[in-house]
Amino acid sequence: MVEDKENVANGEQVSKKGAKKLAKAAKKAEQKAETASAVAANNAAGDSAEDHAAGKYGLSEMIQSKDKRSERNFVPVSELSGQVAKGLVWVRGRVHTSRSKGKQCFLILRQQSSTVQCILAVGDVISKQMVKFAGNIPKESIIDIQAKAVAVSSKIESCTEQSLELSVEQIFVISQAKAQLPLQIEDASRPELADDAEGLNIRVNQDTRLDNRVLDLRTPANQAIFRLEAGVCRLFRDILTEKGFTEIHTPKIISAASEGGANVFTVSYFKDSAYLAQSPQLYKQMAIAADFDKVYTVGAVFRAEDSNTHRHLTEFVGLDLEMAFKYHYHEVLHTIGNTFTAIFKGLRDKYAREIESVGQQYKVDAFKFLEPPLILQFADGVAMLREAGVETGDEEDLSTPNEKLLGRLVKAKYDTDFYILDKFPLAIRPFYTMPDPNNPVYSNSYDMFMRGEEILSGAQRIHDPEYLIERAKHHGIDTSKIAAYIESFRYGCPPHAGGGIGMERVVMLYLGLDNIRKTSMFPRDPKRLTP
Amino acid sequence: MVEDKENVANGEQVSKKGAKKLAKAAKKAEQKAETASAVAANNAAGDSAEDHAAGKYGLSEMIQSKDKRSERNFVPVSELSGQVAKGLVWVRGRVHTSRSKGKQCFLILRQQSSTVQCILAVGDVISKQMVKFAGNIPKESIIDIQAKAVAVSSKIESCTEQSLELSVEQIFVISQAKAQLPLQIEDASRPELADDAEGLNIRVNQDTRLDNRVLDLRTPANQAIFRLEAGVCRLFRDILTEKGFTEIHTPKIISAASEGGANVFTVSYFKDSAYLAQSPQLYKQMAIAADFDKVYTVGAVFRAEDSNTHRHLTEFVGLDLEMAFKYHYHEVLHTIGNTFTAIFKGLRDKYAREIESVGQQYKVDAFKFLEPPLILQFADGVAMLREAGVETGDEEDLSTPNEKLLGRLVKAKYDTDFYILDKFPLAIRPFYTMPDPNNPVYSNSYDMFMRGEEILSGAQRIHDPEYLIERAKHHGIDTSKIAAYIESFRYGCPPHAGGGIGMERVVMLYLGLDNIRKTSMFPRDPKRLTP
Repeated sequence: MVEDKENVANGEQVSKKGAKKLAKAAKKAEQKAETASAVAANNAAGDSAEDHAAGKYGLSEMIQSKDKRSERNFVPVSELSGQVAKGLVWVRGRVHTSRSKGKQCFLILRQQSSTVQCILAVGDVISKQMVKFAGNIPKESIIDIQAKAVAVSSKIESCTEQSLELSVEQIFVISQAKAQLPLQIEDASRPELADDAEGLNIRVNQDTRLDNRVLDLRTPANQAIFRLEAGVCRLFRDILTEKGFTEIHTPKIISAASEGGANVFTVSYFKDSAYLAQSPQLYKQMAIAADFDKVYTVGAVFRAEDSNTHRHLTEFVGLDLEMAFKYHYHEVLHTIGNTFTAIFKGLRDKYAREIESVGQQYKVDAFKFLEPPLILQFADGVAMLREAGVETGDEEDLSTPNEKLLGRLVKAKYDTDFYILDKFPLAIRPFYTMPDPNNPVYSNSYDMFMRGEEILSGAQRIHDPEYLIERAKHHGIDTSKIAAYIESFRYGCPPHAGGGIGMERVVMLYLGLDNIRKTSMFPRDPKRLTP
Repeated sequence: MVEDKENVANGEQVSKKGAKKLAKAAKKAEQKAETASAVAANNAAGDSAEDHAAGKYGLSEMIQSKDKRSERNFVPVSELSGQVAKGLVWVRGRVHTSRSKGKQCFLILRQQSSTVQCILAVGDVISKQMVKFAGNIPKESIIDIQAKAVAVSSKIESCTEQSLELSVEQIFVISQAKAQLPLQIEDASRPELADDAEGLNIRVNQDTRLDNRVLDLRTPANQAIFRLEAGVCRLFRDILTEKGFTEIHTPKIISAASEGGANVFTVSYFKDSAYLAQSPQLYKQMAIAADFDKVYTVGAVFRAEDSNTHRHLTEFVGLDLEMAFKYHYHEVLHTIGNTFTAIFKGLRDKYAREIESVGQQYKVDAFKFLEPPLILQFADGVAMLREAGVETGDEEDLSTPNEKLLGRLVKAKYDTDFYILDKFPLAIRPFYTMPDPNNPVYSNSYDMFMRGEEILSGAQRIHDPEYLIERAKHHGIDTSKIAAYIESFRYGCPPHAGGGIGMERVVMLYLGLDNIRKTSMFPRDPKRLTP
C-alpha cells in the first residue's frame, strides 16, 4: 500500500493533471470529438458526486521519461498464474474489449498474444465513477492496472489465461486509442473457416488490413506469423553458420541489370542512373571467386514485375547462398536440401506455439517432409504429369498449374510437402547455368518446392570464363555488357553452385497460407507502396 | 596407389584431353596469348622427351559434375599437421607463388588465410617436364595436389604452416588464372606500417583494390575483416534475440521520403515514382505500435549524400533496433549500451584470430571499453571541449573535429574507446525526438561513439500523435505529408526508444581502420557503383 501512495504522490499518474493535459492536446486534434469522449464521460461523473476512488484511475501524463524509477513491478500476462492469491501486481496491456454492466465492468486485457479477464465492481475500493471510466476506455488503448490475481472456478473460454481473472484496484490510461477503429481486432482475428455462431461472419478484407497494418498486426495469428518468420531467418543463418558458411552483404544499387534488362527498377544516382538488384547472384559468385568458400546473404531483392498474383511481390527478402564444391554440384544440392530439413524440424520443434496460433485462424495442415529430402529428376516429373494426362514438352518449363499438380502427385505418391526437382532442361535456364555434361538437353540446375510451389531456384554456375562467353553468345547476350561478370572468373574460380530462396514464400507455404501478403510485414506490389 | 590409378582411369584429369579442351577454349579468348603460355611450355617439354610422370600432372577438364564420386579425400591446409608422415593426401588450393630452380619447383599453396610450402624435385616420381609445368602455372590458379606431408627442421617463415612442407606427387590445374594479374596478392597484403626490406614498398591503391575486388578480397586481412563483420551481425542478432527481440524486415522502397526530402534516391515505380528508405525508422516504430515490443532489423539503408569522405557510403548495412519501455528511455539506452559491450566481448573472445590477421597488415590497437559503458551528458561533453580550449555553443551539434577531439579527451580521462553521450540539444534533433521534460533545451536522445566517431544515433520517440503534430509544426513540417506516420500512433502506442547503427562503421572503428571502404565488401559512394 505504501507503494501505491508513492505512485500517486510522485505525480506519475495524477488523473486530473493528466486529463487536463491530454484534454488540451485533444482539442488540437482533428479527432477531437472521438478521443475526448472517454475523458468527458469520466469528468462528468467525477464532477457530480464524491469519488472515493479518486487518484486510483485516470489518464496518465504522457510518459516522457521524467523520473528514473517507478515502483511498479510489472508482471507479464503469461506469468500471472504464478501470482494467484499473492497480493497486488501491476500489468500493462491493451484494452482488448471492455463492457460495463451496471456496477461492474468486465475488461479483457491483451498483451501480444495473451489475454486475461479483468473486473471492476463498485465497492469499498472501486467507485461508480471508476467503473464508468473503465468502461469508456477506447479499445486498443494501453493501460496500467494494479490488481489481484484470483482463481476462477469455471474456465474463461474467451481468454488465453483461463483459470484466473484480475480484480482491479487501480487503472490508468497510458496511451489512448481513437474511439473509432478502422478495423476490430476481434474481426481481424476471426477464424476463416469456422462459421460465426452469431451468423455475422464479419471478416476484414486484405486491403483494409494492409491499409491499417499497425492494427492488423496485433492479431494473434499475425503476432505468430512474424515471430515464425524471424525463426526461419534465424534457423537459415544458424544452420549455415554451423556448416561453415560466412554471411556477406551485397549492394542493392547496381550499375547494370543483374539478370538481364527486364523487370528491373531504375534509380536516379546523382547525375547517372542505376538499378535495384534483382538478386545477389553476381556478388555471391564474386565472394566465391574471392575465396570465401561458402557464403549466404539475407536481404532485399527487387522485381519490377507487374504481376498481381497471390505469390509475387515487387520487393521481398532473399535468403541466398552460394558454395564452392569439389566435384559434383550435388554436394551443394544436398547441403541446401538438408538445410531445409533442418529448418522444418526447427520450426516444428521450436515454434509449435506460433504454428498453433496461426492454426486458430487459418487452416494449417502440418507440413510433411522426408529425411533425406526426396529428389526427383525433371524428366521423372514430366513423366508423372503425362501419366496424369497432362501434355507437356521435354524441354518446356513447368507452368504454374502443372507445378501445383505435380506437387499434388508427389504428395500422393511420397507423402511429402517438400521435394527437389533436379536436372532442368538447359533451354529454360539462364545462360550462366552449367550444362549437363552427360545429356545436352539438361543442365546442372534444380528447383525446390513446398506444397507444390517453387521456393528455390538454383544451379551449378559456369566458372570458366571462356565457356561462359560461349553460352552467353548462344543466348544472344551482348558479352560486352557482362564483361565485369565474366572478368570475375579470370583469376581462378572453384566450381560452385547455389540458390536463392524467397523468405515470404517459405513462411506462406510452410503454414499453407493463401497469399504472400500475409507473410510480408509491409508488402510491396505493383499497386501497393504504403504503409 | 590403387586410388591414383582409378582417378586417371576414370578420366577426371587426363591431361592431354584437358589440355586440348582448354587450349581450344583459349583460342576463342581475347587473353589467348597469356593463358596459353603455361600450356604451351608444358606441351613443348612434353613432346620433346619421354615423360615418366605423364598422367600425374596437367590441366584438368572443367569440373562439370560429370561423375558423382571422386576418390580424392581432401585435407584442409590448416589440418595438414595431423598428416605428417601418414602417406599421401589431396589438397585443393591456389598457387600463391611458384618458382622453378633447375630441377626443383617451390610453390606456396594458399587456402583462404592458410599457406603451405610445396616442393617438386625431379626424381623417380617427378619428371623434368612436370617441374616445368608446375613452375609455369599462373599465380592464383586453383590446383589439386597429391602429396606427402613432411616435417621440416627449420621453420618456414613465409607460410602459416611453418613446421611442414608438402612433397608433391601429382598436380592438376582445376581453374587457371590469367598470367597477368591487375594486382599481386603479396602487394595487396603487405603491412602498411612496416618498411619493405627490399626497399620497394609496393602498395596497392584503394581504387585498384576495389576495381579488382575479387583479387583484393583474397588477402588474409580482407578474409579476416569480412569474417569479423559477419561476427558483428551475428552477435548483434544473437544478443538481442536473447533479450527477447524479434527480427523484422522493412521495405526499402517507400512512397515518401522517410527522413525529410533531402538526400534521398528516387526510384521509378511502374508509372509512379518512389524513394529508397534512408532508415527503417517508421517501420520499426510501426512494429512497436503493433505490439512486437522489441524489434531489430538488419538491412540496406540508402543515403543520396554527395559526401566523399572516409566514413560515408551511399548504401550501407543498418543494424536498427526499437524497443517499448515502461517508464524511462534509459531502459532502452542501457539495453543498447550493454549490447555493445556484449558485441565487443564476443569479438575479443571469438574473433581473436581474425583481429590478429588484420593486425598483420594494419595497425590495430586493442579496442578498450568499460563495463558498464561510460555515459556522459551532452553538456559534460561541451564542458570538456571548452576546457580543452574549443569554442562550442550549448545547443550546437558536435562538428566532426570536435567529435574526434572529445573522443580523445574521453579516452585520456576514462581509458575507453566506447562511450554514450546522452541528452542532446532538442534543436539539433529530428522533430519526432521526445523533448526532455525537465529542461526545454535538451531532448531524450543520445549518440554512441567508437574511437571518437559516431556509430549510433537514437532517442525516445514521441508516441503521442497530438504532441507529434505540435513538434512537426514547430519544425515547419507539412503535417499532411507525414499523416500516415502520425496515424500509426492513434491506436495506442507504448513509449519507445531505439537507434540505428552503421555496421561498416562499427567494424572499421573496432579495428581502427582508416576508411569505410575497407569494411564494405562492395562499397557504394557517389563515384563508385562497381563492381
